[in-house]
This record gives sequence, C-alpha cells and structure tokens, in this order.
Amino acid sequence: MKHKKPLIGIIMGSDSDLPVMSEAAKILDDFDIDYELTVVSAHRTPQKLFQYGQSARDRGLEVIIAGAGGAAHLPGMIASITELPVIGVPIKTSTLNGIDSLLSIVQMPGGVPVATVAINGAKNAGILGAQILGITNPEIRNKVKVYKKNLEKEVLLKANKLEDMGYKEYLEKMAK
Amino acid sequence: MKHKKPLIGIIMGSDSDLPVMSEAAKILDDFDIDYELTVVSAHRTPQKLFQYGQSARDRGLEVIIAGAGGAAHLPGMIASITELPVIGVPIKTSTLNGIDSLLSIVQMPGGVPVATVAINGAKNAGILGAQILGITNPEIRNKVKVYKKNLEKEVLLKANKLEDMGYKEYLEKMAK
Amino acid sequence: MKHKKPLIGIIMGSDSDLPVMSEAAKILDDFDIDYELTVVSAHRTPQKLFQYGQSARDRGLEVIIAGAGGAAHLPGMIASITELPVIGVPIKTSTLNGIDSLLSIVQMPGGVPVATVAINGAKNAGILGAQILGITNPEIRNKVKVYKKNLEKEVLLKANKLEDMGYKEYLEKMAK
Amino acid sequence: MKHKKPLIGIIMGSDSDLPVMSEAAKILDDFDIDYELTVVSAHRTPQKLFQYGQSARDRGLEVIIAGAGGAAHLPGMIASITELPVIGVPIKTSTLNGIDSLLSIVQMPGGVPVATVAINGAKNAGILGAQILGITNPEIRNKVKVYKKNLEKEVLLKANKLEDMGYKEYLEKMAK
Amino acid sequence: MKHKKPLIGIIMGSDSDLPVMSEAAKILDDFDIDYELTVVSAHRTPQKLFQYGQSARDRGLEVIIAGAGGAAHLPGMIASITELPVIGVPIKTSTLNGIDSLLSIVQMPGGVPVATVAINGAKNAGILGAQILGITNPEIRNKVKVYKKNLEKEVLLKANKLEDMGYKEYLEKMAK
Amino acid sequence: MKHKKPLIGIIMGSDSDLPVMSEAAKILDDFDIDYELTVVSAHRTPQKLFQYGQSARDRGLEVIIAGAGGAAHLPGMIASITELPVIGVPIKTSTLNGIDSLLSIVQMPGGVPVATVAINGAKNAGILGAQILGITNPEIRNKVKVYKKNLEKEVLLKANKLEDMGYKEYLEKMAK
Amino acid sequence: MKHKKPLIGIIMGSDSDLPVMSEAAKILDDFDIDYELTVVSAHRTPQKLFQYGQSARDRGLEVIIAGAGGAAHLPGMIASITELPVIGVPIKTSTLNGIDSLLSIVQMPGGVPVATVAINGAKNAGILGAQILGITNPEIRNKVKVYKKNLEKEVLLKANKLEDMGYKEYLEKMAK
Amino acid sequence: MKHKKPLIGIIMGSDSDLPVMSEAAKILDDFDIDYELTVVSAHRTPQKLFQYGQSARDRGLEVIIAGAGGAAHLPGMIASITELPVIGVPIKTSTLNGIDSLLSIVQMPGGVPVATVAINGAKNAGILGAQILGITNPEIRNKVKVYKKNLEKEVLLKANKLEDMGYKEYLEKMAK
Repeated sequence: MKHKKPLIGIIMGSDSDLPVMSEAAKILDDFDIDYELTVVSAHRTPQKLFQYGQSARDRGLEVIIAGAGGAAHLPGMIASITELPVIGVPIKTSTLNGIDSLLSIVQMPGGVPVATVAINGAKNAGILGAQILGITNPEIRNKVKVYKKNLEKEVLLKANKLEDMGYKEYLEKMAK
Repeated sequence: MKHKKPLIGIIMGSDSDLPVMSEAAKILDDFDIDYELTVVSAHRTPQKLFQYGQSARDRGLEVIIAGAGGAAHLPGMIASITELPVIGVPIKTSTLNGIDSLLSIVQMPGGVPVATVAINGAKNAGILGAQILGITNPEIRNKVKVYKKNLEKEVLLKANKLEDMGYKEYLEKMAK
Repeated sequence: MKHKKPLIGIIMGSDSDLPVMSEAAKILDDFDIDYELTVVSAHRTPQKLFQYGQSARDRGLEVIIAGAGGAAHLPGMIASITELPVIGVPIKTSTLNGIDSLLSIVQMPGGVPVATVAINGAKNAGILGAQILGITNPEIRNKVKVYKKNLEKEVLLKANKLEDMGYKEYLEKMAK
Repeated sequence: MKHKKPLIGIIMGSDSDLPVMSEAAKILDDFDIDYELTVVSAHRTPQKLFQYGQSARDRGLEVIIAGAGGAAHLPGMIASITELPVIGVPIKTSTLNGIDSLLSIVQMPGGVPVATVAINGAKNAGILGAQILGITNPEIRNKVKVYKKNLEKEVLLKANKLEDMGYKEYLEKMAK
Repeated sequence: MKHKKPLIGIIMGSDSDLPVMSEAAKILDDFDIDYELTVVSAHRTPQKLFQYGQSARDRGLEVIIAGAGGAAHLPGMIASITELPVIGVPIKTSTLNGIDSLLSIVQMPGGVPVATVAINGAKNAGILGAQILGITNPEIRNKVKVYKKNLEKEVLLKANKLEDMGYKEYLEKMAK
Repeated sequence: MKHKKPLIGIIMGSDSDLPVMSEAAKILDDFDIDYELTVVSAHRTPQKLFQYGQSARDRGLEVIIAGAGGAAHLPGMIASITELPVIGVPIKTSTLNGIDSLLSIVQMPGGVPVATVAINGAKNAGILGAQILGITNPEIRNKVKVYKKNLEKEVLLKANKLEDMGYKEYLEKMAK
Repeated sequence: MKHKKPLIGIIMGSDSDLPVMSEAAKILDDFDIDYELTVVSAHRTPQKLFQYGQSARDRGLEVIIAGAGGAAHLPGMIASITELPVIGVPIKTSTLNGIDSLLSIVQMPGGVPVATVAINGAKNAGILGAQILGITNPEIRNKVKVYKKNLEKEVLLKANKLEDMGYKEYLEKMAK
Repeated sequence: MKHKKPLIGIIMGSDSDLPVMSEAAKILDDFDIDYELTVVSAHRTPQKLFQYGQSARDRGLEVIIAGAGGAAHLPGMIASITELPVIGVPIKTSTLNGIDSLLSIVQMPGGVPVATVAINGAKNAGILGAQILGITNPEIRNKVKVYKKNLEKEVLLKANKLEDMGYKEYLEKMAK
C-alpha cells in the first residue's frame, strides 16, 4: 500500500512493533493522509537510519512517527539527523512494561526534542501528526475537529445508555 | 513584551514554573517567532483554561506549549479543548522529581495526544514548536537548521579543545 | 436505575472503567444511599465535565466519586470546578499498572485536594462517601458501623475455621 | 491553643512532622474551624492510638487528619478503629522521598479507606476537611468557595502581571 | 492442626494470603517446630491485633511471622505491641506487584524494627524463625545446618546433571 | 573498644558506611550487649568474608548485622555461609537513594533469608538483634521492654507539650 | 556436551534460569566458541562459587557469563574473586520483573565491575563475550561482523516485505 | 595528552560528563594503558558518531567506553556501528538520578549488547576495559591483579584500624 506522496513517515525498530504501530497508520488512513511505513532499526540498520533521516525532508515528508521499545533510540536518533518534527512512540516491553522505552525516548537533551506520546500510544501519534499538518491544511484540520466531535458524541451516547439502563444491565451487555 | 500576532502560546500552571518555562520563550526569541506567555492553572482558573483553549485557534495560535508539575493536568486539558497540537513540559517536583508530572502528561488516552518533552525540557518544547511551524515556513525551518548546525559546531569545538589540552587541564578550566 | 435524589455522583472517564467503578455503586446500594452514575470524560467531553461540576451542588450532590486511568485528570478537574469533596479512584492500566493513574490523581497542588483511594479501590470510595455523609446522618453512620462490625466478624470466622482445620485442609477447600 | 469543641483532629506520627502538618492547622485557623492537634505514634504509642480512635466520635470529632512517613501506618490504623472519615497525609522521607509513605497510606484494603492527599499535602488535607464539614455547614462551605475564588483571583493577577511586564522583568522581580 | 506449645506465631492479614504464608508453616513442619497459624487483620480486626500482640509472649511465643499485602500494616503494628522479634512477609499485590507491601513493611521508624524478607518470601520467614530459635536450641540449629547442606547438595546434583547432559537435553527434560 | 565475648557481629562493606552503622553499635552499647564491629567487603575482601562467616558461630557470635550499599551483597553472602540469623541494613546511595541496596538485600532466594530493616535503619538492626537475644535472655528482654516504654513516654511527653503550647509556639521552639 | 577447552564459562544461580541462559550458549554454538555451562549458586553453594572463581583463569577461561535473579549476587561475587571480565545477566523475576536483578548486578562499587546486559539479555551476553574474544581473535571477530551484517539484512528484508505488502497484509501473515 | 596508539576510546555525550568520565581515564593512566578521550554527541554530532564508530577498529581501538545521561543513546549507537565491545556508563541526571540513563543504555535489543556499569561508574568502566585487554596481555592482567590486591589490603587496613580504635574514635578521625 505505497502512497504516491507521503507526508508522514511511520518507522519502527522491529516488525514486532507493527501490531502497535499500525494504529498510527489506521488513523492516517481514516484522515486520508498519505504516509509511508517501514522498519528502520537504529541498532541493526544504522546506515538506513542515516539515509532515512537525511532524505526525509527532500522526499517530501513533513512529520516522522517513530516507535521503539527497550533502549529505544530510534526516535531520538532520527530527530538528531533531520530537522523535521519527530513523534516518538514508546513500545511496551515484556520486562519493564515500557517504562524503559518511555524514558529512553522522552528524556532527550536540550537541542533535540522528541514529541513523545503514551506507551503504546501509536493512535495518538497519528492524531498528533494530523494536528500538526492541520495547522496549515484546513481540510485535515477539519477532519481532526470532526474526529474529536465524534469522540465526544460517542462518549455521550455511552453515558446516556449507562444512565438509562443502570450499571448492572450495562455490565451484562459488556460481558457479552 | 506582548507580541502583535503570536503563533505560539506558552502557558504554565503557576508562576513558580517560570524559571523553567522561560527557556521556551528564550528559544522562540532567538528564532524570532512571535509568542504569548501567561499563567493558566487547570485547577485554580478552570474558566480561563476553557476560554484560552476555545479561543486559541481564532486568536491565530498554531501551537500551544503547556508546562505543569505534580498532578499536571494543564497540557492534557488544553489538548482536550483545542484541536491545535499541544506540547507538554513536565516540571520537576520537590517530592517525586517530576516522574509524577511526566506520567500525568504523557499517558493520555486515545484521541487526545500531548507531545511530551523531557522533565524540565522547556527549551526543547520551544524548538519542537519551531520545527512544527517550520514545516510550511522556510524561514523558521532554516533557523532550526542553523541552530542544529551550531549545536554541532559547538560540540565539535569542545571536543577539539578537550583532545588538545587533555582532560586534566580541561577539568581545571571547567572548575574556574 | 435512576435515583430520585442522588447524594453521591459516581463518574468515570470511560465505560471500560465500569467493572471497577460499579463496586462503588454496589456498596452504596448496600448502604441504601441514593447516587447517580455516568461517564464523563475530562478529555473527550470537556464541556460535560464543566457542566457536571458546576451543577453538582445545585442538583443536590454532596460528594463526587471520580475514577480514571493513565493521565487521569477527571478527579482533579472536577475538584477544580466544584467545592464539593471529590474522591478519586485510580484505575489500573495495562502498561504501568495504575501507578500513572495514582500519581495523576493524588499529587494535586495546594488548594484543590482529591481524596484518593487505592488503585482500583472503588469499593473503598463508596465506603468513604458513606462515612462522609454519615457525619451528620446517623442512619448512614450506623450502617457503616455495622458494615465494619461484619467485616470483623467475617475475618474472625475465617480465622477460627483456619485454626480448627489447619492450613492444609483450608487450602484444599479454597482450591475447590 | 486548645479549642473548646474541636471538629477535626489533626494527628501525626512524630513531632518532626509538625512543620508539614501545621499547614493543615493553619488553613483550619483561616477557616475558623475548631480542631485539636497532637502526636500519636502508631508504633511508639499503640495504646494512645487505640484510645484516640475509639473516643474520637464521642469527643465530637467529625473528621481526622493523620500524617505519617515511611512505613506510615497511622492513617490506616486510625481508620480501622473509628468509623469517622480519615484523611491521610504522606510525609516526604529522606530516603525514598515519600513514595513509601504514599503507598503505605493509599493502598488500603477493601473496607477501610483512607482519603489520601499528595505527599506533604497537609494544606489540602485541611481544605478537604473543610469541604467535608461544608456539606452540611453553609458557613464553612461559603468559606471554601471564597477561598477557591481568591486562589483564582491571585493566579489571574499574577497572569496579568506576567503578561504586562514580560518574562524577563518578572523573573528579575522573582529573584529579589 | 493445633500445636500444644507453639513457639512461633504465623499470622496473615487475610485468608487470601494463605497460599503464600503456608510455605512458612511447611518449613516449620519440616523442622518439627511447633507453631500456631491464624488470620489477624490490622484493619478489620484491630482488637484481635492488640490482644494477639499483648498476649504473645505470655502464651509462650518466641517469634512472630506476619504477612500482609498492599498498605501492609500487620507486621509493623504487631511489632509495636510486642517486644518479640517480628518477621514481615510482603505479599505480592495484583496492582503494584508487592512493592507497596514491601515498603509498607520494611520502612519502619527507629525503635520498632520488622525483620523483612522478600516479596512472597514466606518460606524464608520460616527458615529465619528457625535460625533465631536455633541460637539457643542446638537441635533446631542442627536442622537448619542440615537443611542448608541439602540445598547445596541439590544444587550440586543439578549442576552435575546439567554438565553431563548439556543444556539441550536438560531443557527437554525440564519441559516434560 | 574490643569486647571480651561479642554476641553480635556488626560488619559493613566500607568504612564510609560507619556513620550509619555506628547507630547499631550505639544501641547495643545502651543495652550493654557485647558486640564486635569491623569492615568486611564482599567484593574487595572475599577471603575475609568467607573466614568471617565460617568462624562466626565458633567464635560465639549469635547474630550478625551487615550493612552495605548499591549492589549490596554482603548481608546475603554472609547469610549463605553461616547458619546464624543475619540482619541486613541497606545503606542509602548517592544515585538511587538506597532502593538498589534494599532490593539487593531483601530479595533473597528461598533457603537463605536476610532479616532486612529500613534503608539506613542501623538503629533498628541493633534493636532487632537485642530482641532476638532477648528471647532466651530475660535481662536483655527487659531492657528492650524498658526501651520501648521510654519511647512511648517520650512521645507522650512531646504530645502533651504540643497540646499545651499549640503548634505555633512549638514550631518556634523547634526552630531554635 | 562438554567442550575440550572452554574459553567462556556460563554459570547461573539456578537451573530455573536455564531457559534464559541457554540463549548465551546457543549464540556461542553458532560462533563455534568453546564454553562450559553449569549451575553455581552464590547463596546455596558458596564453596563452589569460590572454587569456580579462583580456578577460572587457570582452567583457561577468558570470560565469565553469570546470570541470576532477585537479590542477584552471583555475577558480582564471581567478579570479586577472579580478575577475568564478568558479564552479568539479570533474570526477570515473578514479582519485580527483574528490576531487582538488574540493580543487584549493575550497581557494583568502585573496583569490581560487572558488564551488565539487559534483563533476560543472555543472547547479548554471548555476543558480548564473542566481541571480547574477537579483539585478538580475527576468526571470531569476523563471525561477529557477519552476524551483525546478517541482522541488518534480515531487518532490511522484512522492511522491504512490509513496504511491499502494506501493514494490513503483513499483520495477517504475522497472525498466522 | 594525546596517546600515540590508543587501545581504548573514551567518549562522552557532553563535556559536562567529564568530571565523571575522567575517572575512567585516570584508572587507565594508572594502568599505563593508551587511550584517547573526546566528546561525541549521538544527538548533536551524529556524523561524528558514525565516523568514530566506523573508523574505531581501523585506528587500532580495541574497546570503547561511552558515557551519556538521560535518553542516553551514545553507547548503544556506537555499539550498533562497530563490532568492538562497548562499555556504557550511565551518567546521573538532575531529574531522575540516572535511572533514565541506566535503562536507556542497558536495555539493548538482541544482537547489539552494551556492557553497562553502575550509574556514574566510570572508574569501573576503565577497570573493565583493562580486564578485557588483560585477557591476552599479561602485563595489563597483572596490573589488574595488583590493583585488586591493593584494594583488599586497603580495606583490611581500615578494618584493623577500626577494630583497634573502636567506632567512636574512628568516626571522630573521619570527621576531620
């Protein structure tokens, strides 16, 4: 599913991160935003890391979303190579639940920021990418607005349903 | 020092956050980016929080930088009200060193991202704001590029100096 | 199951919190205390958050119990809007087990307290609500007293049973 | 400074907690709420702990505020003895910064809640006590309302000042 | 399985702790040391807590082993009431894995120690109890010595087996 | 200050632990219990570690108190060599505040317990040692009892003083 | 599977660590490096620990890989006895996920380093061992180089595959 | 102080790390091992990072010691570029005390190990480097042996002194 002219690059340190990182792709699909998606490992493919970062702007990318787990260096390293804004997604780990990934991504030194979202928060990374593009793109901005409106409606609907049926019936329906 | 047409809004939960948050302002000063800066407390001025968030886009803001400490709700709440991208700065706290601020800001639920930077990372919040504006503004983009180039030069200069004089002499100079 | 005149409002950030938060409702059912229960999301329905908080006292509520997970802003934000006492329930999260929820709720700044209970401690939130109402309502106070007496009896019964049968037989019975 | 008829009992595990816990007293002084204040150590004066808890209600207390640090058992133990609502204040410790105090106080088992506030959050414990009394006491309720209004005003004033003079001048004034 | 003259009292905050705490009993069974075992809840049966602690010495107990989870106050409170040595067992919790239990038990203030073992380390609590009794009881001391000797032998046997068959075959045997 | 026939051996990993560990010695001085005190480093003097552990019982020691910081192996290693009960004191560290020391000491595997006290809790290690000796030594037992009684009195005195003068005057006196 | 002349000794605290530690053996098998593998428990077989450490160099070992969990003393203790480089593998634990193992291994005092790898990172311990031997052994060095090259190729292949088929198809294939 | 033919490269992310990292240099000075020492920032000088890593082996380096703080990517990135063994030194940070640095360095993915030492453990990084070189260099190996012997002697001397003068006199001398 290659896009003609991707605005957002989604990269991850390993294909095992794909179940989480695909949520970023899904939300961009929903917003009709062109993106590219691949695996770039800071530790296993350092050459590709550099090439990806150095060519990103020229290839037309405007935002990079990078997910990684453990000693998660991909988001910070890509941010060190490109001047594009980089969104980092800490992946939950089997030993430390992602607190290692979070600290490895968010605690960047002065000069090289990574816009970090929640552990496994790839969906929010996609939304943040859309919000950034939406600053100067009214169409995307509107889609974000509608998306947030719909979130609100959805919660209000559930709230009404819960108020109407009471918690016991609601819990029973949830269990099904 | 009010700006005519601020593109970035810098807000903080308390004026005690100013020594940290002013670093965001300084970097925007350096980049010649118009911003506004004020105190908005999610907990003490909830009305202002709402008004600020709801009017932000219409007043011309394109990015919001929000800093807060402890149970740090300001960045996430402002992100829930506006569709602009929000950058969150976790402020170091006297009891838990800011791990509370960090988790309160970064662990946002699906639908409402906050672009979180390091604890006390206000400078990086400013740079990230500039990177975001720089996507469609070549002048700002260039300034970010030059800034990063200068960082590199500065480190290389120090490296050369250290290699030349050796660590003992360098440490002595540092101590002065 | 709408109550005529609810004294306690139970709110939660998402209907996925209901399996935990319903324990607060159950204990209030046991104590025969009128309550209302619904979903209010600080991040997805900020308008409703404000309306809920501002109307709470006038609608007759005396205590609010608010549960939320991750960057859990609901209890603190509702506390910033109303002068009623707010009890916060940190919901266990899939990544950080609720330590994020706990810190986001308990570490409130001076001026706006949230009465925080244990992670997933919704039952205790209900009991605490009853204890608060019981200060001036002797009937409720008595129910709390009886409830605690029964807890004691129950433990003493188990203790006797364990002493009588020994740990081996007791463990076998538990396993069934 | 003994009060005729204290409504709130403030207790702490050691007189070394007084610099923190006195903030609860100060706020009750401000609200003109009668309280008593003393040292009760769960570990060093277990007899007094029991007597205090068992006599609390009969002596007219309506809320108990208990502060302790480290393996902080005072709030939970007093809550196990009385049916009054108990507010717990985790005191910052010299080794673990109060995370030990926080977990020892907040993680109570089902049946015996402690309304926990932030580490060193004694001021908020006082405000929470006032909020609880304010449910049925319009005078106290009004004082809490005014207090929160004043907090808001204070922040707005600082915000205006900061907007007017800019961050540089403001920082200079803060430094003085 | 009541013992005629128990030397060690094993208590736990809830019968849900029995699967862990029974390991202390089993080791004492192995060492042929008389003990008693029951449930005493610091929070639900505070009266029993006091009676247990105050009568412990007179009933002939020489060591108390106390297990509890979460805001685990039982070991520390029993230690505040009796002058007998108290061994504390932090029980693993479903939310924070027992780090709350550990800190609640080990971080006791000066004057009232609790001899804390590992999270869920009830077996070691039993061994420690035996070691303490063994100081003046040569028979028990000898049993501890033999027990440790056997541990050593067991490990050496496994080591030999692993060296002989290699890790592949050993892993296959383990899997069966 | 060598004792004729020490019952308790106090050892520490480094002489930099002495300011903390000397509190164990002081309390044993108060209780008139003979002890010896020296430096044994698990990592720097492994030979001495073994000799110390293997000769301990024969030299008449009945309890060993071992303090260490960081990767604190001394208490656990000495416990692996002797069958005497070993009390471990985690020393506060300059980087991780002693949470590393605590986990390195308390999380011992099944078979080899260390009776762990609070971070920097050397005084309590001394008291625990006295409690253990007191099981069969009525004189020591009585001293522990008196010590605890005095602690209680001291707290009650302070409580009375605080109740009499009020918190303001008391704080002023503390400040002097 | 005894080797004639092992260069690397792989030891672990318990045979329950074998499923993790065998990954170190596997990688050395792949690199054709002779090793020995056995169980040495710091706490249960302290004599063997000493003998192993003292004879290691003379038996021709050049590197030791030691894995242990919880209060993990094996790597640090073996490092205190031999002057060979020691690689430590923190084993994940059932209660604290291996953060206890990690801190017990990595936080060694000045003078006695342990080269610590990730929690459960036995494979990397093997690779590190090979890298160390490879310094002066061109054959091994070359194997490490090829290994890293292959890692890179593997990731690039996956990346190409993902780019070609898109994330949806790729996820479906992963699920099978 | 440039060396003719450095065997060890010491690099750090910032010259502010020099006070810590110079301890590695000092120990190599003591061992008479040639090294080079400079600043290489993964985030500010990514080009130099690559050049350094790629040329390291050809320039004759045999071991690299890399120190960094916060989101500490330098050790892991250099390890991804070279096949030389890399020793990582986590630098203590002003907010999270270096737990962020530690996790960013030690939690490397399979295939790319970093030999991690304690937070601020630069001295041990130097010793570890010497131990590695000492495998095939008998002169260096001997120096390490002598160093460890001296450590032992030093501790034994202090132990004797402490035993002779008692803790009170010893503490007084320390205080001077």
